[in-house]
Amino acid sequence: MLSKKEIKNIQLLKQKKYRNTFNLFVVEGKKSVLEFINNSVFEMVKIYHTTTFEKPIENAVILSDSELKKISFLTTHQQVLGVFKKKVFSFENSNGLSIALDTVQDPGNLGTIIRLCDWFGVTQLICSNNTVDCFNPKVVQATMGSLNRVKVIYTDLHSFLKESKKPIYAAIMDGKNVYQTKLNSNAILVLGNEANGISKENLELVTDSIAIPRFGNLQQTESLNVATATAILLSEFRRS
Amino acid sequence: MLSKKEIKNIQLLKQKKYRNTFNLFVVEGKKSVLEFINNSVFEMVKIYHTTTFEKPIENAVILSDSELKKISFLTTHQQVLGVFKKKVFSFENSNGLSIALDTVQDPGNLGTIIRLCDWFGVTQLICSNNTVDCFNPKVVQATMGSLNRVKVIYTDLHSFLKESKKPIYAAIMDGKNVYQTKLNSNAILVLGNEANGISKENLELVTDSIAIPRFGNLQQTESLNVATATAILLSEFRRS
Repeated sequence: MLSKKEIKNIQLLKQKKYRNTFNLFVVEGKKSVLEFINNSVFEMVKIYHTTTFEKPIENAVILSDSELKKISFLTTHQQVLGVFKKKVFSFENSNGLSIALDTVQDPGNLGTIIRLCDWFGVTQLICSNNTVDCFNPKVVQATMGSLNRVKVIYTDLHSFLKESKKPIYAAIMDGKNVYQTKLNSNAILVLGNEANGISKENLELVTDSIAIPRFGNLQQTESLNVATATAILLSEFRRS
Repeated sequence: MLSKKEIKNIQLLKQKKYRNTFNLFVVEGKKSVLEFINNSVFEMVKIYHTTTFEKPIENAVILSDSELKKISFLTTHQQVLGVFKKKVFSFENSNGLSIALDTVQDPGNLGTIIRLCDWFGVTQLICSNNTVDCFNPKVVQATMGSLNRVKVIYTDLHSFLKESKKPIYAAIMDGKNVYQTKLNSNAILVLGNEANGISKENLELVTDSIAIPRFGNLQQTESLNVATATAILLSEFRRS
């Protein structure tokens, strides 16, 4: 049985404020929870699963389906929910490509970008302090476990870029055609906010502006979504 | 003032069944609504906007903010909502690349793919009959107006692929490295369901299996999301 207090404490983790206070976050679904347990990157605090869950976990709290529903953040709740300890990573200087996000706001976009970093072997993702929290449940959900392999580092992005000695690439509407540009993989690639792009002060630090050409006939097409632009650019960095 | 019946009728358009019965769908937000009006691809039926909306529209129903909230499908409602007439497109045989979706279920993914087609100049998107409805409000929202430029055609995908004389490409885990493959742009590119990929019967019709190489060190990485895979593959078809 779950106490009201326990239900409330888990529900509070939906909010960044309380994730910070308790230093905890929530993972849901069989695939993700098992991956978080097996990778041991984040310390497991408590696991809740239903009586019918096919991979019973030692010391887990066993709940009825309706009880699990009470603590789940998902519209369609899963059979397992885990509470893990948050962890703060710091940037390690190393060769290779890093991605930097300037004020990305949508949890789905951040989750997709973390998953893309994982796929393309980018192990460090730098986020401006006002980028959405990577422990937001919607982000964790969208990463499908990739949070275990990609270090997400929150920092003052402007200072970080200023101090970096690597080339700084950014996707800008009137940048150089990325298909015709020789890309240097020992670099930082910056992507910006969904509505406003990269902030003016960070734009000034960009050394290489690139662009994904548009092929549609009409010029009305909205810019690409930040996650799909990241997908295409990461693919370009890796293919060469 | 809105009657209860009018509010109810608009709310019903959240469901595919009623969009089909009334042959209508909803568009929200300034940018999207204005684009639907200006393109005239879909017949405008009724526009509702708030008293403070900065681009007043002729014959629009003017509402208070709280009234507009009652008919909106969005968590954060916008200042304008339009009802338009649905339209059925049929496939036109022509040279060039078409995308075919086999049972794509997530509205956000379909919306992103429509927007990608628009960017990369793919004007026809073939969907299996069980792919999510392109007039679903979440799809319309995610397309950012691209529905005006990309014809979405629902059909029996298996028969369609069977009758096509073009090469049929599909992204399969053990396909040929897409970066090392000469791609023929007069073709059909098939993408599959989020969890189960392309159905067995359609896989049998694929003539060219391709794959996006994984660069992460660990082999645990989940496959790419269908919308990001589409982004990377469309970029590959266009860059060559």
